[in-house]
Amino acid sequence: MANATSRIAADIDFDRQGRQSGYLRAPLSRNTSGWGIVEIPITVVKNGSGPTVLFTGGIHGDEYEGSIAVSELARTLDPAAVQGRVILMPAVNIPAVLNDTRLSPVDGRDMNRCFPGNAKGTFSEMLAHYLDAVILPMVDASVDLHTAGHSGDSIPSTNMHHIADPVGMARTLAAAEAFGAPYNVVFAGVDEGATLTSSVERRGILSLGTELGGWGRVNIEGVRVARRGLRRFLHFMEIVEAAPDDDDPKTRHMQVGDRACYAFAPSAGTFEPRNTVGQSVRAGDPAGFLHFVEDVDREPVEVAYQRDGILWMSAGPGRVARGDTVSVVMTDYSGGKV
Amino acid sequence: MANATSRIAADIDFDRQGRQSGYLRAPLSRNTSGWGIVEIPITVVKNGSGPTVLFTGGIHGDEYEGSIAVSELARTLDPAAVQGRVILMPAVNIPAVLNDTRLSPVDGRDMNRCFPGNAKGTFSEMLAHYLDAVILPMVDASVDLHTAGHSGDSIPSTNMHHIADPVGMARTLAAAEAFGAPYNVVFAGVDEGATLTSSVERRGILSLGTELGGWGRVNIEGVRVARRGLRRFLHFMEIVEAAPDDDDPKTRHMQVGDRACYAFAPSAGTFEPRNTVGQSVRAGDPAGFLHFVEDVDREPVEVAYQRDGILWMSAGPGRVARGDTVSVVMTDYSGGKV
Amino acid sequence: MANATSRIAADIDFDRQGRQSGYLRAPLSRNTSGWGIVEIPITVVKNGSGPTVLFTGGIHGDEYEGSIAVSELARTLDPAAVQGRVILMPAVNIPAVLNDTRLSPVDGRDMNRCFPGNAKGTFSEMLAHYLDAVILPMVDASVDLHTAGHSGDSIPSTNMHHIADPVGMARTLAAAEAFGAPYNVVFAGVDEGATLTSSVERRGILSLGTELGGWGRVNIEGVRVARRGLRRFLHFMEIVEAAPDDDDPKTRHMQVGDRACYAFAPSAGTFEPRNTVGQSVRAGDPAGFLHFVEDVDREPVEVAYQRDGILWMSAGPGRVARGDTVSVVMTDYSGGKV
Amino acid sequence: MANATSRIAADIDFDRQGRQSGYLRAPLSRNTSGWGIVEIPITVVKNGSGPTVLFTGGIHGDEYEGSIAVSELARTLDPAAVQGRVILMPAVNIPAVLNDTRLSPVDGRDMNRCFPGNAKGTFSEMLAHYLDAVILPMVDASVDLHTAGHSGDSIPSTNMHHIADPVGMARTLAAAEAFGAPYNVVFAGVDEGATLTSSVERRGILSLGTELGGWGRVNIEGVRVARRGLRRFLHFMEIVEAAPDDDDPKTRHMQVGDRACYAFAPSAGTFEPRNTVGQSVRAGDPAGFLHFVEDVDREPVEVAYQRDGILWMSAGPGRVARGDTVSVVMTDYSGGKV
Amino acid sequence: MANATSRIAADIDFDRQGRQSGYLRAPLSRNTSGWGIVEIPITVVKNGSGPTVLFTGGIHGDEYEGSIAVSELARTLDPAAVQGRVILMPAVNIPAVLNDTRLSPVDGRDMNRCFPGNAKGTFSEMLAHYLDAVILPMVDASVDLHTAGHSGDSIPSTNMHHIADPVGMARTLAAAEAFGAPYNVVFAGVDEGATLTSSVERRGILSLGTELGGWGRVNIEGVRVARRGLRRFLHFMEIVEAAPDDDDPKTRHMQVGDRACYAFAPSAGTFEPRNTVGQSVRAGDPAGFLHFVEDVDREPVEVAYQRDGILWMSAGPGRVARGDTVSVVMTDYSGGKV
Amino acid sequence: MANATSRIAADIDFDRQGRQSGYLRAPLSRNTSGWGIVEIPITVVKNGSGPTVLFTGGIHGDEYEGSIAVSELARTLDPAAVQGRVILMPAVNIPAVLNDTRLSPVDGRDMNRCFPGNAKGTFSEMLAHYLDAVILPMVDASVDLHTAGHSGDSIPSTNMHHIADPVGMARTLAAAEAFGAPYNVVFAGVDEGATLTSSVERRGILSLGTELGGWGRVNIEGVRVARRGLRRFLHFMEIVEAAPDDDDPKTRHMQVGDRACYAFAPSAGTFEPRNTVGQSVRAGDPAGFLHFVEDVDREPVEVAYQRDGILWMSAGPGRVARGDTVSVVMTDYSGGKV
Repeated sequence: MANATSRIAADIDFDRQGRQSGYLRAPLSRNTSGWGIVEIPITVVKNGSGPTVLFTGGIHGDEYEGSIAVSELARTLDPAAVQGRVILMPAVNIPAVLNDTRLSPVDGRDMNRCFPGNAKGTFSEMLAHYLDAVILPMVDASVDLHTAGHSGDSIPSTNMHHIADPVGMARTLAAAEAFGAPYNVVFAGVDEGATLTSSVERRGILSLGTELGGWGRVNIEGVRVARRGLRRFLHFMEIVEAAPDDDDPKTRHMQVGDRACYAFAPSAGTFEPRNTVGQSVRAGDPAGFLHFVEDVDREPVEVAYQRDGILWMSAGPGRVARGDTVSVVMTDYSGGKV
Repeated sequence: MANATSRIAADIDFDRQGRQSGYLRAPLSRNTSGWGIVEIPITVVKNGSGPTVLFTGGIHGDEYEGSIAVSELARTLDPAAVQGRVILMPAVNIPAVLNDTRLSPVDGRDMNRCFPGNAKGTFSEMLAHYLDAVILPMVDASVDLHTAGHSGDSIPSTNMHHIADPVGMARTLAAAEAFGAPYNVVFAGVDEGATLTSSVERRGILSLGTELGGWGRVNIEGVRVARRGLRRFLHFMEIVEAAPDDDDPKTRHMQVGDRACYAFAPSAGTFEPRNTVGQSVRAGDPAGFLHFVEDVDREPVEVAYQRDGILWMSAGPGRVARGDTVSVVMTDYSGGKV
Repeated sequence: MANATSRIAADIDFDRQGRQSGYLRAPLSRNTSGWGIVEIPITVVKNGSGPTVLFTGGIHGDEYEGSIAVSELARTLDPAAVQGRVILMPAVNIPAVLNDTRLSPVDGRDMNRCFPGNAKGTFSEMLAHYLDAVILPMVDASVDLHTAGHSGDSIPSTNMHHIADPVGMARTLAAAEAFGAPYNVVFAGVDEGATLTSSVERRGILSLGTELGGWGRVNIEGVRVARRGLRRFLHFMEIVEAAPDDDDPKTRHMQVGDRACYAFAPSAGTFEPRNTVGQSVRAGDPAGFLHFVEDVDREPVEVAYQRDGILWMSAGPGRVARGDTVSVVMTDYSGGKV
Repeated sequence: MANATSRIAADIDFDRQGRQSGYLRAPLSRNTSGWGIVEIPITVVKNGSGPTVLFTGGIHGDEYEGSIAVSELARTLDPAAVQGRVILMPAVNIPAVLNDTRLSPVDGRDMNRCFPGNAKGTFSEMLAHYLDAVILPMVDASVDLHTAGHSGDSIPSTNMHHIADPVGMARTLAAAEAFGAPYNVVFAGVDEGATLTSSVERRGILSLGTELGGWGRVNIEGVRVARRGLRRFLHFMEIVEAAPDDDDPKTRHMQVGDRACYAFAPSAGTFEPRNTVGQSVRAGDPAGFLHFVEDVDREPVEVAYQRDGILWMSAGPGRVARGDTVSVVMTDYSGGKV
Repeated sequence: MANATSRIAADIDFDRQGRQSGYLRAPLSRNTSGWGIVEIPITVVKNGSGPTVLFTGGIHGDEYEGSIAVSELARTLDPAAVQGRVILMPAVNIPAVLNDTRLSPVDGRDMNRCFPGNAKGTFSEMLAHYLDAVILPMVDASVDLHTAGHSGDSIPSTNMHHIADPVGMARTLAAAEAFGAPYNVVFAGVDEGATLTSSVERRGILSLGTELGGWGRVNIEGVRVARRGLRRFLHFMEIVEAAPDDDDPKTRHMQVGDRACYAFAPSAGTFEPRNTVGQSVRAGDPAGFLHFVEDVDREPVEVAYQRDGILWMSAGPGRVARGDTVSVVMTDYSGGKV
Repeated sequence: MANATSRIAADIDFDRQGRQSGYLRAPLSRNTSGWGIVEIPITVVKNGSGPTVLFTGGIHGDEYEGSIAVSELARTLDPAAVQGRVILMPAVNIPAVLNDTRLSPVDGRDMNRCFPGNAKGTFSEMLAHYLDAVILPMVDASVDLHTAGHSGDSIPSTNMHHIADPVGMARTLAAAEAFGAPYNVVFAGVDEGATLTSSVERRGILSLGTELGGWGRVNIEGVRVARRGLRRFLHFMEIVEAAPDDDDPKTRHMQVGDRACYAFAPSAGTFEPRNTVGQSVRAGDPAGFLHFVEDVDREPVEVAYQRDGILWMSAGPGRVARGDTVSVVMTDYSGGKV
């Protein structure tokens, strides 16, 4: 059994009724602590019967809004109000969270490129394996909360992949509407197959992702959308009875499909964008200008949009490397395969 | 003579008429290049008689708006339109600029804590010495362009220190109005004495600083303010005749004085702010909440403003360390010493 | 065949009679030596017929007592006095030994978490594979010598896991008595499955481990126990005729079972213990106090023992991280499964 | 299918007629670019029918001659003159090329020890997998261009392994003669099984390697041999009609067999060689002297050749580590298995 | 004035009556916090009139006993029981304390080789300057608490330098007796001139050092000696009235003079000592043996004592480098200049 | 006195007759050895009366020829044959020598940019200070042996600066002829003022430098020139009577003056030179071509010589950075100021 082979132990019992909070204990030898342990926070709230939902934040260490919202819900969710089970992991990749970086400082890996993981692999692979092999088999629906981190900014939004089964597709679109971010993006994934979302989908679990901001800052609106969305999602799953508030957010379904939605930096330089996320843009207009402040007399290079739409993501750090994505444009969802 | 002792050579002649662009050649031994050179871009535009102005960007490597505006002006300023001399250095601390960090990767130093520098010291100290000992003696007015970098965000603004001499003070306030950022902040400096501004002021040179954004992104409005401000400043100095545009920006004079203007993080954590820069805030209201997503069951800590005013700067990276500044509030300038 | 696939070559012949000393040659590309080799010392003493014993030291690079004793025996063991074969590897993980660290500086791995290894993996995995796939198939009994390294201190002792087969269990207990450390600990392993001991046991080979000191120093008594124990163990295996000395050391059988034997640091701090290894302790008594010398006015936290017994291991570096083990208590062996 | 699982995408179409140049796009998350891409240059020239040849340079990042020659051919090869397909990859291991090191700075691996690679492994493993699983299935003949890098110097030469099939062996010898380096070395490989050459041979593809210099410098003659050799090889493969020049280089077939061809440094020190590559040497003569400039009064140690022959490779960096190869002697090819 | 130029600010008032605890705020720019602050704990207890005493721990980051004792006294000393002023700094070099290393991770410096410091220098130099220029001018007597850290072990002891003035010498010997460690060592300093003690002595302040253990562990007896010693020292200075306990510890005055008191490692290896600190040793007897576990067949090297006496310090990490001190022998104090 | 303030101690007596070999003992705190020592080899041979000569090698750690020759002379020079004093330091910058790099791994500094040094500075500065303040005051003539290291190659040669005093100039030219390298170069120094040579010249000491090879390899001819040159220099100084051999090498005096002697890399790339050192070159001819193997379709850039002459130095590592020197041309010495 996959569970048996993980080196990670949980000090909570996933089957017990009520609220438990504690830590996964993941072994990590250090030079001064041969039996060293990394503690990964986890809260389980279980009551009566009903589905199991997994909320994850901090798969990347510099994406804060989800971590804050999941952590807050973990402290405040009343077991009595729950029918089913909620597993809350606000800071999954804790070495990266404490290091404030996307990649883990332990093994230099992007944890969201390590799935389905490896129980005998590096720390990130071991952790990915635990989620895939131990946690996911218990789960009916998953929301994995991200932002653009230090890579750029994103307009608060949920996202999902196209699903071949029309029932599953419809239900996921409905779940996104329930979450209630301003936009929901159906997209062809980046590096599919190695992400948590891929593992979730492989198991046929209802799956949502989010992008709630970026630039390495905490987006105030992003936190608000996450807080409300998590509670609304529990209501959608019929785990809690009451929706979190009276307002009725409208979600616009969008899509990001082929490579024309993306603009890339043709070389290293300082990228000055012309738009912020959420603005409407037009093909042929400048996405921005690449400046070469290290060279005298070298003219800036214009990078153009290749599609009309709304700006989903934009470059973050002013200094970009060759090949970096500097903008992603989304268009209204056409209803088909992306 | 200080000039004579610098190991840095310029391949331009500061006294020649017309436009020259080239590089300072600063020696830096590498393991594979014993006579290695670091090239620092510099443009000098000189015509007729008139004062000398120095525009500097990139003292910190992750503050892009000033670098872009100075670089653009260096490529486009018409010598025929100039009366006097303009020295433009868009990427002073080039090792940090190419590394996209505040600190220099060569010696780990913050160049803006190295002034007046040392011709025999580390690379950053050698560079600071060149500016102080070789460049500044030629200069009548200086604008050093900064942002909050990755440390946070700032509302586009100029800044200056209080000057004892009323004439100098009035002239600097007028220069700030000419630059035309939305705000101009008179403040008691951070780490005074070791900054470029300190070196400038020690020599009695007219001095302005700027804060034009931050969060590690290029602030679109910040670039616009810088572009317009540099040209307007040249007009103020009577170096160029025409002001850059017709609009007449209004600058509000503010001040940041004692420690009550600042709020600090009492411990390490994830800081969720409640305001963005430019908003009005009130003493006692929460500046934000420090979350501990790595701990289950630990309550967030509120950090409060201690003064009414407008938010000048706010925390950048979501993850803050103990002692980090998370907000700086400015109030209307009272006219006296700050 | 596993042997065939290893990239490591031995310059000795395991089947030749007499004493051979030489090196395993393990390939490791460096930037300045593409065909670079890491030499791992090995001595084989073979004579007549009889079983094969493996003595290993230096699996961790900062555990010196075993390395010294195995190295000394490798230089001095007289082939004429041997019936059988003795394989002596005093510094298995030589990159870590030369670096004086638990983890390998080549790949950052704890070699004793890499078994059964991987011939195509990282350097530590390749090395673990060689031991598992090439050396162990020749071996009848193994003693792997450890200490607590920089993680803490340990009372000189042998250790073993519980073995289901009563004959094997009795024989291992007898072997431990023969070795003659003051204590022999039957314990449920840490990170079982990835250690050399696990590989040894999987093959049904008689297996002993040792803990002979720690704190990063050479424990004088630990070296003495190891020197005597290795020769006594050869006598027990009927490989050498004479026992090494006249005294008859008594070994007390102990056990470390459930988690109550361990005390953990609840957070990072400076840990002041109240006992040294070998002392009797009582449940509820303080194992020590966690001090927070970086904070003014924060009270120390007491960490208590949860079981009566004798202190087997204690925290080493004064500065501990959250989750670190600060004490391990052993109790008299009850004779059953631990 | 192996192809399907690679995370690397090519922006060229291997089946299209004519000349295409572009990049493989290999994903590599960075802390500031989650969707970061590493671009690996590739040119395909295809015309009519005929075999496919692969030319690779830059598997190691400090071996320049092959990179230069392949890059030049990629820019200048006229599709109209081609019958078949030529795939040109001048800088395969681009992170190492840009870092000027043998090993990749991304994962610390020697890419030429990573074959057949792993689509889910480290960056070097992923890259090796792409070559093995996507590129090689299209290829009929391969020339992988190397030098001794910073590990030493080599006389410009091709090399190959012994091939059991006499037809294949004869054809490879003929191919080497066609390439036209001064020497062609038949040798028992170093670390066989994990190199690109091993992957090529496993698939029964015609395979040549080269050694064209070293010492970290660009060898002028090495570039000349490579330039001419690549075009002559295309002629040999009947892909281009005209041989590149009139001269008719003669290739001497040599061999490097057992360990007596190699001399090793017995300890760390400064190695003063007595010969340069291409010179005749005799067994018993000094290959050089190991000096201990860090010790007063320690005599140098002589390292002797153990075989008569011609010096193929010699130590590069003056400072050698214990176990480093300091000379490799080749002898005339005897015609049999090496 | 030296005081004026320090960039470090204290949030306590050294002249106020009563107990204050707070932090020195030392600026340290980070890439993500340009105005970052390092907080250094400090407590001042002042009452009535009387001398000022300075207690410092944590000048080196891996010397715990003094930090614990000073921290505890800072939390518990009753101002009402004090006549005079006690300045307590339990963790002076806080970056090293948090990093658990002797050297500062900020600048790689040994702070106790940086005195009298430099207000514009590296972080360690800036910190040393603050102690020398701001703190010491207020101080009448100083106890700087050390251990052997990871460099070895030491028998709990105070230490001092020979003082030319007989009155000062007698008073310092009396102060050491009052402190009450088992030994007090008069010695010719290591690296004199750059230590805190040197700065203290240059100002004519009564000065004691301590060595209270080492090996990177917390020495239980060392903490006990420190706790008692600090309170007894306050009594000696007539700052507190009551001595801390009834027992009357006896201190033996010793000396460490010329180089014959030291034994050095002649080369790198694993050092097995023959004695622990506090034992009597004889010239010519082995201090220990240097083992070469990385070499087969290389005999261990004996390192001998060169003087009769008692072992003050012994080597710590089993692995020593060439030139490392492996033992220091002390002899009874002869009463004269050492 | 400068001597008194150095922290470095010599275990030899510079005034004693006969041959002494030993070490300078330079303190360097490590995390595991607070009183750690770095040993720097030094030999002094003194007899009768006569001048003092200093031979230094290893100021840079990857320049081997001088180290070998000085080390050999230090072992073999017969005191009976000497009239005067010879100080031999074959590996001055021993941390860099052991690290095989130009820069010191201890502080990242190029020691030959640290003169006249600083007794309280970093390790390299402390070492430079010792040479300047302790050694040089004893010295009448100095030969500092260098090569181009990993920065390129050089034709074996001596070098010197122009000296205003005609007697000193003539004597230095004569000394160079005596040394007997194929070329002697009079040049305007690189980074004058911070080199050992600068310190030597400031004191009016007869001064020669050498360049004996490079590319990180040991140049066989370079060692031969150094061996012979050192003994011939002693003869020139009338310290030894016999010249080392019968042949009478001829030295051609050359000069390297203005910037036109140098060619620089206009950007980063792979530099293919067209000449090796010692060849005649002509202004306008290509020094080489800069290739961009990382880009498809980017044409190589030609770098041209700007002066006729003989190639003194050429680029070493194939990969060059922007601003790197790729060739230095020398012309026949015109007899005047360079």
